[in-house]
Amino acid sequence: MLRIGGEFGLKSWTRHFSLGEEGKTMKGSLKRVDAYEKVTGRAKYVADLKFPGMVEVKVLRSPYAHALIRSIDTREAMGVKGVLAVLTGKDLPGIPCRPKERPVLAREEVRYTGDGVAIVVAETEEAAALALEKIKVEYEVLPAVFDPEEALKPGAPEVHPGGNLVCQHKVRRGDIREGFKEAEIILERTYRTQRVYHAALEPEAAIAVPEPSGEITIYCPTKSPFNMRRIVAEAMGMDLNRIRIVETTIGGSFGGKDYDMAVLGARAALAAKVTGRPARIVLTREESILESTKRHPYILHYRLGAKRDGTLCALEVKAIADAGAYVSKTPLVTWRSSIEAAGPYEIPNVSIDVYGVFTNNVSSDALRGFGSPQVNFAMELLMDELAEVLGRDPLELRWQNGFREGSVAACGQVLHEVSLRECLDEVARASNWENKRKAYSQQQGLKRRGIGMACSFRGSCLGAGGEGLDAAGAAIIVHRDGSLSISTGIAEVGQGSRTAFARLITEILGVPPESLSFNPVDTSRVIDSGPTVASRGTVIGGQAIKIAAEKIRQAMAEVAGEMLGVKAEEIAFAGGRIFWRRDPSKGLSFKEVAEKCYARGVSLYSFGWYKAPDLYWDRERGQGEAYFSYVYAACCAEVEVDLETGQVQVLNFWAAHDVGNALNEREVKGQIAGGAAMGIGYALLEEVKAQEGRLLNLSYSNYLLPTTLDTGEIIPLIVEHPDPLGPLGARGLGEPATQIVAPAIINAICHALGCRLYEIPATFEKIWRVINKQEPKS
Amino acid sequence: MLRIGGEFGLKSWTRHFSLGEEGKTMKGSLKRVDAYEKVTGRAKYVADLKFPGMVEVKVLRSPYAHALIRSIDTREAMGVKGVLAVLTGKDLPGIPCRPKERPVLAREEVRYTGDGVAIVVAETEEAAALALEKIKVEYEVLPAVFDPEEALKPGAPEVHPGGNLVCQHKVRRGDIREGFKEAEIILERTYRTQRVYHAALEPEAAIAVPEPSGEITIYCPTKSPFNMRRIVAEAMGMDLNRIRIVETTIGGSFGGKDYDMAVLGARAALAAKVTGRPARIVLTREESILESTKRHPYILHYRLGAKRDGTLCALEVKAIADAGAYVSKTPLVTWRSSIEAAGPYEIPNVSIDVYGVFTNNVSSDALRGFGSPQVNFAMELLMDELAEVLGRDPLELRWQNGFREGSVAACGQVLHEVSLRECLDEVARASNWENKRKAYSQQQGLKRRGIGMACSFRGSCLGAGGEGLDAAGAAIIVHRDGSLSISTGIAEVGQGSRTAFARLITEILGVPPESLSFNPVDTSRVIDSGPTVASRGTVIGGQAIKIAAEKIRQAMAEVAGEMLGVKAEEIAFAGGRIFWRRDPSKGLSFKEVAEKCYARGVSLYSFGWYKAPDLYWDRERGQGEAYFSYVYAACCAEVEVDLETGQVQVLNFWAAHDVGNALNEREVKGQIAGGAAMGIGYALLEEVKAQEGRLLNLSYSNYLLPTTLDTGEIIPLIVEHPDPLGPLGARGLGEPATQIVAPAIINAICHALGCRLYEIPATFEKIWRVINKQEPKS
Repeated sequence: MLRIGGEFGLKSWTRHFSLGEEGKTMKGSLKRVDAYEKVTGRAKYVADLKFPGMVEVKVLRSPYAHALIRSIDTREAMGVKGVLAVLTGKDLPGIPCRPKERPVLAREEVRYTGDGVAIVVAETEEAAALALEKIKVEYEVLPAVFDPEEALKPGAPEVHPGGNLVCQHKVRRGDIREGFKEAEIILERTYRTQRVYHAALEPEAAIAVPEPSGEITIYCPTKSPFNMRRIVAEAMGMDLNRIRIVETTIGGSFGGKDYDMAVLGARAALAAKVTGRPARIVLTREESILESTKRHPYILHYRLGAKRDGTLCALEVKAIADAGAYVSKTPLVTWRSSIEAAGPYEIPNVSIDVYGVFTNNVSSDALRGFGSPQVNFAMELLMDELAEVLGRDPLELRWQNGFREGSVAACGQVLHEVSLRECLDEVARASNWENKRKAYSQQQGLKRRGIGMACSFRGSCLGAGGEGLDAAGAAIIVHRDGSLSISTGIAEVGQGSRTAFARLITEILGVPPESLSFNPVDTSRVIDSGPTVASRGTVIGGQAIKIAAEKIRQAMAEVAGEMLGVKAEEIAFAGGRIFWRRDPSKGLSFKEVAEKCYARGVSLYSFGWYKAPDLYWDRERGQGEAYFSYVYAACCAEVEVDLETGQVQVLNFWAAHDVGNALNEREVKGQIAGGAAMGIGYALLEEVKAQEGRLLNLSYSNYLLPTTLDTGEIIPLIVEHPDPLGPLGARGLGEPATQIVAPAIINAICHALGCRLYEIPATFEKIWRVINKQEPKS
Repeated sequence: MLRIGGEFGLKSWTRHFSLGEEGKTMKGSLKRVDAYEKVTGRAKYVADLKFPGMVEVKVLRSPYAHALIRSIDTREAMGVKGVLAVLTGKDLPGIPCRPKERPVLAREEVRYTGDGVAIVVAETEEAAALALEKIKVEYEVLPAVFDPEEALKPGAPEVHPGGNLVCQHKVRRGDIREGFKEAEIILERTYRTQRVYHAALEPEAAIAVPEPSGEITIYCPTKSPFNMRRIVAEAMGMDLNRIRIVETTIGGSFGGKDYDMAVLGARAALAAKVTGRPARIVLTREESILESTKRHPYILHYRLGAKRDGTLCALEVKAIADAGAYVSKTPLVTWRSSIEAAGPYEIPNVSIDVYGVFTNNVSSDALRGFGSPQVNFAMELLMDELAEVLGRDPLELRWQNGFREGSVAACGQVLHEVSLRECLDEVARASNWENKRKAYSQQQGLKRRGIGMACSFRGSCLGAGGEGLDAAGAAIIVHRDGSLSISTGIAEVGQGSRTAFARLITEILGVPPESLSFNPVDTSRVIDSGPTVASRGTVIGGQAIKIAAEKIRQAMAEVAGEMLGVKAEEIAFAGGRIFWRRDPSKGLSFKEVAEKCYARGVSLYSFGWYKAPDLYWDRERGQGEAYFSYVYAACCAEVEVDLETGQVQVLNFWAAHDVGNALNEREVKGQIAGGAAMGIGYALLEEVKAQEGRLLNLSYSNYLLPTTLDTGEIIPLIVEHPDPLGPLGARGLGEPATQIVAPAIINAICHALGCRLYEIPATFEKIWRVINKQEPKS
């Protein structure tokens, strides 16, 4: 949502970020490959696309959180002028969903207020909307449950047959009883995090086009084109190769546009199939907030034991995630929580249980962080409280217990290439931590400042907990004139993965970025490369790109070597030239070598395939190699709290991230800035509120997002500790950028106020109550 | 144009072909992969496509065969309501053409009546047409030349600076003087072949779409997407990766839709670039005949020496091809003529010269046969005349001199896997040659029957004469559910290459044809695989497909072997199953193995690349390995000639072709039938007539194509002598099917009449004059 636009005259944005020389391409940065289209407004989002004869689709949703569908009468709706079809779950040729998953259209039962029960296909949106009102659905309302702890109790209403437990993940290390016996101080606290919305600028939208062959092409933004294809194919009863998902320019994902897009795409596909015409479905903002998945709200019970010298002895965690009405990625999200619940600290005795629980709330799914922000929030707040109790500086306590080379994580994995301390040092240095921490500890007056921090480790990519394969493919073609076309299976979700790929290719082949052109993801043209999640785009997708580029390099080096009469191993690529390393004047243009390859029949098409390393994992004890690699970060927030109103102003936010190798410095800084802004919203403003499952704030006038006035100065700090398993050493950044923002902010508020907070968002009402020691309204 | 449709209720077509069990899938045949769409009318041709905001483009063409453009005044045309732009060659950002090539729009000089000089871009075709009339072009008419023999004389008007010789190809074998000294009979004759039109059902059409990135996508039917891309990119001054050619359903090529499409596409691209809107250009039939390239008319001077026993001693050929106004593929077309001019006969002393010559006629280019039909016509007529002179049976004389295993061709190449005699035997047997030949030699009455034959060898694929690389790439994806998506760089031109590829894949992977889906060619997604010419689609493209499929097979066999606990080498693929060869009950479904591969991270994407074998060639003497392989064919025609009118009715046409391995028997028979029909048109009806370069017959009411009533019974005879260099032994068929039809027909007419003909088309007026011994009107 936030983007750095110095080059394009958007100066008002840049003042909030420290971007080095404003308006200039930074050292090692490429322009975003899609910058020009987006900034000039030429980029076409799916809602901008028009197809001749296109029809509009509108969705009727359940008004009840839990009910049986007794009957659906579509006759009157069919009579509305311009209506072509009114379709229900029974019209789907395939299955509405896999067991316990969210149906494309519910056939018998609805499980949250938002479940789709029918669609209208009409010539215009107006006709469709009118017809929606005329569909008569007879429901039998069932008992519902909205609190995940209630949902686990015996006798609670069952969201799905077989009980409300979606999953439980355990991590067991050492001896938890012994650990607490050794402890001299034990803190036991409960934390709560809220339900938030992805809030991408672009709402969910798709257009399904029926092809003459009977196949269906769906144009849409999605972070998970292959998962979407599977769901649409199953709903339509068609083979995977007959559903083609083509990526359009995306207006943000942040973990969204996954299952939501699949459901939407399947509805559009059904409409297209039945009418034989291109069918468009574009959600309004209200519909998007109402129906789409959200970040899991968590209840986190933490019990931490430590010695007086600050050494951590034992940690017990019981975390309960509200999965909402359907499974979705809850098992994966909660698994990541279990791995990261203990934070980036050495604790010899650990017992972690993370539960995913069905309720009749809106379905929860991936949202930037994927189960980390919740546990990071709890653990980082608890660490600050422990420091307070021990009379220690929070930075010092983190230094003392934080991971270093050879540390063992709660899952028993020995860690290497650990850069946590470098990140901590960097934020401490940049923020002038020591002085400010001291200065703000002795304040008077109605406006008080505070400084707080948080740090994290995060598993790279999908890890051992998923069923999904962590692999990706990419294809590169060098054309006769030396220009390149690149196809990848990794959807660009706006985070700039294309630009990172461009950097890898330009680095390896020495070609200018202008010579590259990226094809949109097309599921019939590229191999399933998994979703753009888990900050894996640059890492896994980049490795595939790197392999493909290196194959091309090898082929061209051999031909160039022959042309120049030198060894292929001594050939270098740079500046659009291919030359002898020992005498760069002896060289050829990239184009000349490309032409020669064509003339000789040397293929300049290459396919790269990268699979993440295999991991050992003991699911029962939660021990093993959870991820093949980890990334480290530390953040520091400086805030000012108005004691009269409870309002918090973020003054400065420092974020140090080990990105391994900043493939594009500007993009990296943009990611950090965007992630910080998002985390600030999570900390202070954002919450999707619900009453008996019914969502209360369906617009941006009551679902508050941070603006640039709320984010203060964001100072990205780049740490580069190369990851041997990343492409050119690069590490993922998408989620780290946001996951520890909230605890840093809240710790800073606590520092300013000299009191503790245990839940987010820390709205000014809540802070006012804390200041004035009032109980919250129930 | 002709298609076999027994399955689809089109019975009227099938009665003209012997297709085995009518209406049933033949042994070893797949349904055409695009049959359903085409037969139901659901297939979308480019003219069926609509894009929002699409504008129409019309072309102003030169009325003169040769003139300088003094000025172009577009002001009045710009004033026509609905006109958005009037553009000339000067508006092209790049070059209108390479030297001596046909310009996208002529800047300074026009060289044939058809050269484009301006385009109008308008909201409607009507507005564009109206504005065309208002463009004022001032020409300075230059002297022109229309006869290629005249054009070679000193002082002839120069079409391009530097003389009118486009190219000369020589073949020199043995000692031509000695050869003729040994000869006891010498025949010297001159033959003429006419200019014909491709006459695809679909005229040339293209839509250029400007992309937000500044790239341009062109949707169109083309046999040569990569060549087209180059020409458009050069005209637009853009890199190859920024011009994307996407294949649409094609309504026939027959060698056309190549340079013509490039010129059209570039004009549409210019219109799209200037207006920022999708731009469509659809030629009318009249425009298509007027502007498009044609088959080269030839003047063929043949001198053949033989002994009384029928042994051929010497052959001297001087062939002159009318290239028209631009180079195009004339050097390649005439090179093929030089290789095949001596026919499939052993002649120890040969001197062949083939010339390509510029004139101010419409440009000549590839047309099914590519320089073979002309020389086949001459040589096969001369062989019949020699048989007559010697009192020999034409079949016997061909048997005596025709190629067999180890024969040496005129280019000095030793031939292997020669199947000429099998083809001759097959047509003789099927046609009851011996009896009919005798019976028809003693006829009375006004209707006389004759039987005639012709045979050929033909170089496979591009050969040593071209600059072009004879290679192709293909990619196959097996999806998780076992369905497949296939991408190839070989354009489907209606001949059924996709169906042949489907056969290869189903054979290698044992999957049902329903599980395949073919992506259209997209030049940014597949590697340059050359044009669909030279009957190379199945051979070169098929090898690439085979290699890709075999890689998939290997990967899946290994995983299946592990799953079944047997060796990968003992794994077989058939019937959608993968099983142990020794015990077929021990097996898995193709889908199960695909799923396992995905779970294990084994990539089921594969890329196949095939390059034709390297060839040695001595350009000066025309000696060496002209082609890596050859195909053989023999045809026999039975006709009835009406002595009163000169009208010829083809009664039966037998065509025996060695296809190596009939990958799809039905498609093979369809190709043979279609080729025969096209050859019959060439023999009897078709001719684009011109007067001072101005074409006279611009519609199907005066450019006559054969209908099913003209083609008689066509009997395809399949010979299968596998080519070790073809995929599963398959050989090309597209052009062999048509190249010797005309000489067989004309030889049959000569047999019926007991006289000789020396030119085509043998219209009934010409035959009437021959019968009545009248000189043709000058």
